Amino acid sequence: MSAPAGQTVTLSLDEVRSLTAAALGASGADRPNAEAVADVVTRAERDGCASHGIFRVPGYCAALRSGDSKGDAQPRVERRAPGVVFVDGDRGLAPLPMAVGRPVLAEAAKEQGIASMAIRNSAHFAALWPDVEPLAEQGLLGMSFVNSRAFVAPAGGTKRLYGTNPMSFACPRADGHPPMVWDQASSAAARGEIMIAARDGHAVPEGFGLGPDGQPTTDPNEVLKGVQLAFGGYKGAAIAMMVEILAAGLSGGEFSFEAEREYAGHGGPSHAGHLVIAMDPAAFGAENFLERVETLFGMILADGDARLPGDRRLANRARIPAEGAVLPAKLVEEVREIARA
Amino acid sequence: MSAPAGQTVTLSLDEVRSLTAAALGASGADRPNAEAVADVVTRAERDGCASHGIFRVPGYCAALRSGDSKGDAQPRVERRAPGVVFVDGDRGLAPLPMAVGRPVLAEAAKEQGIASMAIRNSAHFAALWPDVEPLAEQGLLGMSFVNSRAFVAPAGGTKRLYGTNPMSFACPRADGHPPMVWDQASSAAARGEIMIAARDGHAVPEGFGLGPDGQPTTDPNEVLKGVQLAFGGYKGAAIAMMVEILAAGLSGGEFSFEAEREYAGHGGPSHAGHLVIAMDPAAFGAENFLERVETLFGMILADGDARLPGDRRLANRARIPAEGAVLPAKLVEEVREIARA
Repeated sequence: MSAPAGQTVTLSLDEVRSLTAAALGASGADRPNAEAVADVVTRAERDGCASHGIFRVPGYCAALRSGDSKGDAQPRVERRAPGVVFVDGDRGLAPLPMAVGRPVLAEAAKEQGIASMAIRNSAHFAALWPDVEPLAEQGLLGMSFVNSRAFVAPAGGTKRLYGTNPMSFACPRADGHPPMVWDQASSAAARGEIMIAARDGHAVPEGFGLGPDGQPTTDPNEVLKGVQLAFGGYKGAAIAMMVEILAAGLSGGEFSFEAEREYAGHGGPSHAGHLVIAMDPAAFGAENFLERVETLFGMILADGDARLPGDRRLANRARIPAEGAVLPAKLVEEVREIARA
Repeated sequence: MSAPAGQTVTLSLDEVRSLTAAALGASGADRPNAEAVADVVTRAERDGCASHGIFRVPGYCAALRSGDSKGDAQPRVERRAPGVVFVDGDRGLAPLPMAVGRPVLAEAAKEQGIASMAIRNSAHFAALWPDVEPLAEQGLLGMSFVNSRAFVAPAGGTKRLYGTNPMSFACPRADGHPPMVWDQASSAAARGEIMIAARDGHAVPEGFGLGPDGQPTTDPNEVLKGVQLAFGGYKGAAIAMMVEILAAGLSGGEFSFEAEREYAGHGGPSHAGHLVIAMDPAAFGAENFLERVETLFGMILADGDARLPGDRRLANRARIPAEGAVLPAKLVEEVREIARA
């Protein structure tokens, strides 16, 4: 019997973790892969990021069940140059290559002052902030870039070429504050946002996309059939292009239009590329770096309604581990079903 | 006798270079500093970038004459870590520290795969593309970040905190094509664009800025008295914040709000910070990197009216070296006057 829409259940974060690992395991993931995915899903639910929590588990499982992603992938980490960590994801899901490569990247950044990690042959379906926050927890600056399937037009164009191509930035903080981390798509809107507007029969703002005829539209169904636009016009499109070159070009992964062609239609992630850059402020000799960052952040917070990126996540993080994650009952039922199948 | 407004003169690029060097020299710059500035000004005029060509020379000269920037600055280049080049600009203008540091950065990037250059105590008043294009001419990817004086509000705020904080990205190309380089402010509009609207009595689009009352306005005079906004809302503001941290935080240079406080009011540049990152695709082992980039660029150019960033500059570059730079006669007269004084 299916749970009515709108009904919710509350799971502890331990339950989120074990349910996710069980569903992944039942879909063919070995233990290291299932635990790595469960870790990023649990961190998303801990921070109240519903769009990247349990909600993503059916997609991960579908990618494994379709054979598009390997459940027993064994990522290979290689130091290709003093500042370059290269990870071949063995056509698995991205959380494990990210987890095994990141300590090597952090070590390289501390030795060299700056280092980078390119990942190919892995399927990224998570938020980007969990990729870089652990770097900033060690006092490093982190940036990451991920491309995806083609949904977004180039500047002045009307055809799908770029992914929604997010980038993220993490900065360590003083006095035990968790790092400041932002993570944003280079498209004007997340694809999910447009899908929700279509489901609910709402218009979307001008600038979200074009219809299949190449004309601007506020009809979300037309945008979904047509093409999304980058945020902030040509400037956001320039960033989307940079993400393609950094994430897929340097890693030898698939550009978004290539990933689109190969996409197996399972509703899960595709095999594009990722780049993470880590920098060690100590190696630059920047005096009082953390205190100066606090001064800057203090100026932001002193400006009326201005706030720091990620502060809602951190507020959730202070609350959800004790209260648990409130989830759609229908979704939890679906994932339990996957775990049993 | 002053030239009438609208009257133009045509200078050869050699004349642009020698006139610029003469004006800088007469304002207190020694030969290495004058030639480094003349080089970036000449490259701007060669590419038809009027806003960063001869137009900037009176500002450079005023910064020298006021004593705010040193004409005989001797930049000191130091390798602080295998991947970190640090340049102290000795409180001079940015073109010389950029010119002396860049070969060390390029060498480090080829050795390490990725390297960075932080510059402090120098006054940046040029476009950013000339900083990174020479890296891409050597087959490297380049990114740069520069902060400035405070003109832009943080996300959700109404007070001046960030600079117009441009960033740039350069990518090498195959088959003798000049590199693809973009260079864009993180503000919705260049400050000069708003000043021109004020001068001509035109409204500016919504989203360019807020008045001194913190309310949105399309009156350019109100925006100039108030605060500019980032491009693309909170996403552009996140990039502006990242530029503050990368450019001023890592270099130990001044944040834009600090540079604003110290600004001497001469109409020239201020002493903020810069960061340049260079990456060597060969060190990543990316196969056929240049060919793959051409495939991506070919997809962009195949999409109707879409074009590559910087293509107008390159079209000008094919024409202006032979035809000369067409300049306002009044401006050339002013710079000649400076050179004689």
